[in-house]
Order: sequence, then structure tokens, then C-alpha cells
Amino acid sequence: MPNAKAPSHDDARARAPDGGVYDIPSAQQRQAAFDAIRAEAEAWRGRGAQIAVVQGLGFVGAAVAACISAARSENGDPAFFVIGLDLATPSGYWKVARINEGRAPIASPDPELPKLIAEGVDDAQNLRATTQQEALALADVIIADIHLDVKDPARIEPDAIDVSMSAFQSAIHQIGRHMSPDALVVVETTVPIGTTEQVVRPALLEERTTRGIDAPLLLAHAYERVMPGPAYVRSIREFWRTYAASDNASAERAEAFLSAFIDTDVYPLCRLDGTEASEMAKLMENSYRAANIAMIHEWTLMAEKIGVNLFEVVDSIRVRKGTHDNMRYPGFGVGGYCLTKDSLLAQWAGDNLFNADVTLEMTLQGLRINRAMPLHVQDLLDEGLGDAKDKTIAILGVSYMAGLDDTRNTPTEILFEALEDAGANARVHDPLVRHWEERPDVQVFENLADCVQHVDAVVLAVPHADYTTVMDQLMIACENNLPLVIDTFNIIDDRQAEAYHQAGGRVFGVGKGHWRKRGLHLG
Amino acid sequence: MPNAKAPSHDDARARAPDGGVYDIPSAQQRQAAFDAIRAEAEAWRGRGAQIAVVQGLGFVGAAVAACISAARSENGDPAFFVIGLDLATPSGYWKVARINEGRAPIASPDPELPKLIAEGVDDAQNLRATTQQEALALADVIIADIHLDVKDPARIEPDAIDVSMSAFQSAIHQIGRHMSPDALVVVETTVPIGTTEQVVRPALLEERTTRGIDAPLLLAHAYERVMPGPAYVRSIREFWRTYAASDNASAERAEAFLSAFIDTDVYPLCRLDGTEASEMAKLMENSYRAANIAMIHEWTLMAEKIGVNLFEVVDSIRVRKGTHDNMRYPGFGVGGYCLTKDSLLAQWAGDNLFNADVTLEMTLQGLRINRAMPLHVQDLLDEGLGDAKDKTIAILGVSYMAGLDDTRNTPTEILFEALEDAGANARVHDPLVRHWEERPDVQVFENLADCVQHVDAVVLAVPHADYTTVMDQLMIACENNLPLVIDTFNIIDDRQAEAYHQAGGRVFGVGKGHWRKRGLHLG
Repeated sequence: MPNAKAPSHDDARARAPDGGVYDIPSAQQRQAAFDAIRAEAEAWRGRGAQIAVVQGLGFVGAAVAACISAARSENGDPAFFVIGLDLATPSGYWKVARINEGRAPIASPDPELPKLIAEGVDDAQNLRATTQQEALALADVIIADIHLDVKDPARIEPDAIDVSMSAFQSAIHQIGRHMSPDALVVVETTVPIGTTEQVVRPALLEERTTRGIDAPLLLAHAYERVMPGPAYVRSIREFWRTYAASDNASAERAEAFLSAFIDTDVYPLCRLDGTEASEMAKLMENSYRAANIAMIHEWTLMAEKIGVNLFEVVDSIRVRKGTHDNMRYPGFGVGGYCLTKDSLLAQWAGDNLFNADVTLEMTLQGLRINRAMPLHVQDLLDEGLGDAKDKTIAILGVSYMAGLDDTRNTPTEILFEALEDAGANARVHDPLVRHWEERPDVQVFENLADCVQHVDAVVLAVPHADYTTVMDQLMIACENNLPLVIDTFNIIDDRQAEAYHQAGGRVFGVGKGHWRKRGLHLG
Repeated sequence: MPNAKAPSHDDARARAPDGGVYDIPSAQQRQAAFDAIRAEAEAWRGRGAQIAVVQGLGFVGAAVAACISAARSENGDPAFFVIGLDLATPSGYWKVARINEGRAPIASPDPELPKLIAEGVDDAQNLRATTQQEALALADVIIADIHLDVKDPARIEPDAIDVSMSAFQSAIHQIGRHMSPDALVVVETTVPIGTTEQVVRPALLEERTTRGIDAPLLLAHAYERVMPGPAYVRSIREFWRTYAASDNASAERAEAFLSAFIDTDVYPLCRLDGTEASEMAKLMENSYRAANIAMIHEWTLMAEKIGVNLFEVVDSIRVRKGTHDNMRYPGFGVGGYCLTKDSLLAQWAGDNLFNADVTLEMTLQGLRINRAMPLHVQDLLDEGLGDAKDKTIAILGVSYMAGLDDTRNTPTEILFEALEDAGANARVHDPLVRHWEERPDVQVFENLADCVQHVDAVVLAVPHADYTTVMDQLMIACENNLPLVIDTFNIIDDRQAEAYHQAGGRVFGVGKGHWRKRGLHLG
């Protein structure tokens, strides 16, 4: 019996990022919980609902499961009974437990997400979560939102890219071992180009052959554009969706499934010709965004040296709608899960799955520049402080994006570690992040005034709403000893910079060379 | 007396690109012609019009002069008497002669341009052209549209960039020698960042000091976004315009001048803080476009190897308005005057005018990729023909853009020369270009059927409207011996490719790896 081994003592508790702790139940308890879900599923099927299993309850899977549970058939009844599936591990189980409590596993600035989960779990009672792989056997449609990662996104040379496919492959094999012969498998994970046909299909066929299934496999790739943030749910239900399959039957089934929970009247589905096209589209889309950000950074450095306010320049160019209005602004860096790694998946796929002998030079150069962006702030600190060694520097903002508590690949980590390496005393504040998962050893200040007391410099790293009044807060908290301020996201206007300068403070803005020209910055 | 030297016999004729020939008049004749213009100018001034002198009558200057001549004051009268100024040289005089004939010096797909010029010259009689620098003395406002070029845009290393400032500087000195003390000088030329303050201002001040003028100099930079093409005139009068000056008086004068001929109700002017910002905006804007094109090229190569139709992929991504809808398509390369050189002006300015020590790495990499793009077609030809040596290849399209006869920096030249170097027989066709200025030794076929007779391959290089039916034309002209076709701009759809394949032809599409995957291409 799979998963029968009881977790060891160390493994027995799962911790959510917000500090919540869940005891991982015994195998017997988990099985009993699943048996109840199975009974519910059978009842829902009897009432005409389909069974959807979402494998992987991370930032995407949990939200997609909620959206599917909210789909209604023509008579107004829930169209699906949805089972979220994750592992009985410390990093997986808390998501299962949270959903079964009717709560979102992710802190969401979009109130729609917890609302949909509560409605699904408590009101409609068509949303459940489990650790038991047998759930896969119940499914009419299986959505794979399995984690697939690049081992070290700092390694940006083609030969050094290390894609860890084994956990992904194991999870796909689990699907093959349990799935009903005519269930549809939709790969939603962002994968290297070619994965659906070269990795997923063979793994599923291998298991199905072992089970004596020779029915045609129904398999599609449909990538998500989930934006954790204020439009979290809308980014799934009311947004464009691209999908593909290598046979028409699979494509038709995928289209029907996606149409059930996406507003395809306003956002018609886009079917591409083959899963390689769909897989490539996702990677190219995010690579394009990352490269656009990177390009602005080199012009930022130029603008600082020349004495130009690049924010105003970019605004003046962005009036050209449709050609230039997506131009990005100077900033601190690029974090998160997608823009930091998707280009690496494309390069890896070309080299390892297609022998393509193509180097995505500009694309990879963009990733390198984006990783180096936070280090420009270190240069500015060195310039302003003489040398940052032994100085105390407060970085305001730990998450990779305003309004989120998500710290994955945050540029704050890059600057923090560079400052530590240089012998500076770095400290961090964030209004949302209470526990820095990647650096659990580092205290995240909750009180801004405490964090900036007696520091030599303050780096405004993330445009959280709480930082709108940061200059006023600094003036109060550091009245007699104003720290050097580095503004990476244009929160300080010229008037405030002048005022801070008048008060004896020094201020530098990334991309704001005009301050340097006017002698405003660095005293 | 400047320009008094009679042109030598060789210099005595000026040839327009469309073949028109003009005898360059003697200095005496030119002076007499100008005296008549001066008398007209004085009469116009008496009626309340301002005098505008446009220095340089190229693709920008001629069109801007026409637009200024069309401006009307509140009472409906022409707001300006406009004098276009160019040199009494073989490459300059024909523009002067053409305008005075009431004709556009540039072949324009926009009927508005010749219409405005005819109206200005013949009807309102407020548009004239001259070779005489004294015209500058009449001006209330002088618009500098002087040629400023990079000597060899193929040299893309920072140290190798060679910007030829001397002709530009000489022309600015001419302005300083003649200008009225309170005339406004508007630099409209695309210049290296810093040029207005570090090159133009000192040159003007030097001449003014010699003349004993100590009135404040009125100087601004206002860059154009002229798009030669069907919206030629609209790209000047009904489009966004950015400008800057280093003092308020100049900025106010520039604003009033620009508002007189631009529809600022719909397209409000954007004033930036200093001419460096405005100069940088122009270069950054075009660099951004060039880099976006370059990035698509490396994904094109990947798509071809993997077997994906990248046009469909890009279409599927472009639905994301405001972030991805400016994504470019696979193609043949980048030509023209701006996108091939503006990034070089920025790098050169950083190194030579500001000692900035910043390398625009991604930006320059983009230029390199764009120059290499046409050579990808050579690779495809080698693949399809075994080796292109001794084969005959017809390139359809010589201009750098559809619908234009402009051949400046056309990617066709890069492929043509590479094929010549490889020992192939290359020939070219274009429905609009009758005389290839950069390669006067090469015959440009006017008849498509003649050009493609008995060739081994045909490259569809420019999406001229005449090429919409090119596949049908090829099937007729090459009935018994269908050439390999390379489609660089997605004019051939899958059905046509199949049909050509059925007929025994071979076809390859740039960015269309799905044809390769289906065995459609290369027989």
C-alpha cells in the first residue's frame, strides 16, 4: 500500500509560511479521510458532476483548484468535484490541511481566492484535498501542477543549467499508475519544450502498458498565466489561455475542460499546433518580459552617469501604444519563480531534448543582467558610504513583488548576501513577510522604526504600499542621524529629495542621474 | 561669399534616386533665385507670418518643411513662410530643385506629402527651397535636420564606433554665422546624447561671440518620429513629440513652435528636463525596438530546430495587451537609417561625451544579431541547395521596408554580398526601387518573371504588396523547374506550401519549423 510507512518523528509536522503548524496524520488516518472524499466523489458523479484532480497545491494548483470548483454547469450546479492532491510531507501536507479547513494555503492580496476556497469547501462542498494518490483513479481530468525547478538559477551558462526532472517524472508515473484509461491529463506546469511528448507521454504509456491499457492516451499542455497578486483569481478565470495537444481528441477534451472554468467568451482559447508550441510560448513569453527588464537596466546605468531621469524618459516613450508602452522602468531586480528560470528551461530543452545547437544569447544575457541588478545598489552604497564594510544597512522589502509575501528568488537575497560577504551588517524589514523561508536565520523586522534605528543606509527595495510614507517615517525615526537612502523604485520625488537634502540627509535614486547632476545625492 | 565657387564639370549635375537629373545652377543664378525668396519672405513677414528655415531636406527635413508650411494661424493664413535649405552638390541640389517644382523629393506612399508640398509651393506660395546659407539670417526659427551618421554600422564594438560629427558641426557653425540673435534653433537631428549642449551650443556661441552677439541663445532639442510610409505626414503632425531645452525661455519658444504644426490637442507635447534626456529618449526608443526584433531571431532559430511555427506562437502571446503585444515576428533583418545606428550613437556618447564607462551590452548584442539575420537565409540556402556556390538566387525585395523605395542599410545588401562572396549568382527584384543607390552596379529587375527564370532559389525578402501573389507568379514563371523558395515574412501559408510541395517545389519558411517537422521543406 503506497504511503503506508508512518512519517518519522521529524517528518510528523508541517509548517505553513505564516507559521501555522499541522501534525501530519498517520497513513491510516489519511486513508480514512480519503475514503470519505471518495464517497463524496461518487455521490457527485451520480449527480452529473465530473471529477477533477489537481496534482500539486502550490501557488498555481491551489488557485486553479479553487477556480475549477467554482465552475457551474448550465443548471447552476457545480460542474466539478475537485480533489487537490499533495504529499504527506512537511512541505506538502499543510496545503492539504489548509484547503480542508476552507482556507487558502497562500496569503493572497486577492480576497476572491480565500472566498472561492471557502465556498468550495464549506458551502458547495465540492472542493477537497488529500494526500492519497488513489484519488487519481477517480478523475475525469487530471491537472498536473507539479513542481519542476532549475537547481540553481544563478548558473546561466547553457552547459551549467541543471533541470531537476526526477520528482516531476515520479509524479507523472503516479498518474499513469492510477489514472482511468479515458481520463484527460492536462500538463499545466511550466516545462522544458518537448516535455509533454518526450517525458510525460512515455511515462504515462509505460504505466498504462503495465496495466494492460491500450486505449488512446488523452494528453494536453495548457499553460497558466497566474499572477499572485490582487488579480490572482481573474488571472485564471478571466484571462487568455493557450493550449495544445498532439491529437484532435485530446485537444477537443482540453478545450471543453478549459471552457468550463475560463470566461472564453471574452478571452477565447488559443489552440496551438502541438505541445512544443504551447510549451515554447510560455517560456518565450516570460523570457521576453525578463529581457525587456534587463535592457532597461543598462540604460539605467547610462542615465545615472549622464545625469538623466530615466523614469521621465521611459514615460515619454511609453506614449507609443502597441510598440513601446510595455517598456519597463529602472528598478532593483527581478525575482519570483518564472522570470528567473523560464529562459533556462528553454535553453536546456534545446540542448537536451532537441539537440538544437542554438544559444539564446540575448535571452540569457538578460537573465545575467537581472541577477546583477541588485548589486548595482551595492555599488551605490559603496559610493555613498565610502565602503559598506562594517556599516549597517536596512533593506526595506524582502518579497519579490509589492503586496506579496512571496520571497522566491527575491533580489533582496542577492543584495543581502553580497553585503554580508562585504562585511556589512545588513538587516531587512517587510510588512508582509513574517518568515523568510530561504533565509530562516535572518530576522525580518516587523516594525520599520526599529529596523532603521542607527543605520548608515536604507535601501527602498520593494514598493509595498506601506512604504508610501517611508520618507516621513525615516525623518521621524532617524531625526538626528539621517541615513543615506537608496530609492530603487521612484518613490521619492524631486521635492522630497530636496527636503531630505536640506535636512542633512543624502539620497540616491536608481535611474535618477539628474539628482547626481544637481549635486542632490551623496551630500 | 560662401558657395561662390562654380561647381566643376563633374559636380554640375545632381541626380535624384528616381533617375531625374538637374543641372546645378551657377552661384550667380543661385543667388538670384534666393534674392527672390528673400523678397517673398519679407512680404510674408509683413503679413504677420514667421520665417522658418529647415536645414537639410532629407527624409525628415523635406517632410517637416511641408508640414510647417501647412500650419495656419488663427485667421486661417499660413503661419509660416518656410525655406528649405540644402547644399549645391550632386547629392543635395536635386532636393532643392524638386521642392521648387512643387514636388516631393522622396517617393512617398503617403499621398499627403506631395499634396502638402504642391499646396505650399504652388497654391499658398509659402514654401521654397534654396542653397544659400544667407537664408538662415531671415529665420525666426531654424530647424536643424542635418545629416549625422555612423561611418560603418557593421562595427558594433564600443571602441570601433565612428561617428562623423564634422559635417554636422560645420552646418551648425553656418547657423551661428548667419542666424538672427533671437532666432530659436531646434535640433531635430538624431544626435549622440550631449550633442546639443556640448557640440551645438559651443559652436553657435563661438560664432555669435565673433559677431558680437551676447543675447541669450535660444536652443532646444525636439526629436522626430517620422515614419516614411503610408502615414508619413501623420507621423509628424498627428503624433507624440518630445522636446527639451536647458532654459525655460528656449523651452517655451520650442513649445509654441511645435504646437503651431502638431495636433497637440490629441498628442500633447512632452517636455523633458534637459536636452540630454530628450536625446537619450530618441536613441533608447529605437534601441528598444531593435533589441525586441533581435530577441525574436534567436527564438526563431530555436523554433526552426524544434519544429514550431513561431508566427503562431507570437500571435498567441501578443494577446497580452500592454505587456507583450509589441512582440515582433520572425523575419529577414533590420534596415533603414535609425534602428541600425541609434544604439551606436548612445554608446559613443557615453564613451566620448560623458566618460560614462557603461557598455550597453544587450543593446549592442541586439544590433549584432540583427545584422546577422539575413545570413540565416544563406544558411538555409546552403542547406537546401547543398552549397549555394555557382547557384543562381533571386532575392525579391531590395528596400528595407515594404512599400518604400528606401534602400539604406537594407538587409538585402548583406545577403547579396554574402552570396557574391560565396560564389553564388545573386540577382534582385523590386517593384519600387529602380536604382539601388548603394550598389549602382547591380541591375534591379523590374519584371518578376524575368528575375526568377532559371534560378535555383528565390528569397522572399520584403513584404511588398506586389508579392502577395508571388507563389502563383512563381508557379507560372518557373513551371517546369520550381526553385527552392525561402519565405522570410510568412507570406506562404501551410496550404500553399503543401501545394508547392505537391508540384515538386521545395519551400522553407523562416520561423516555420513545423514545415521541417512535416517533411514539407527541402523536398
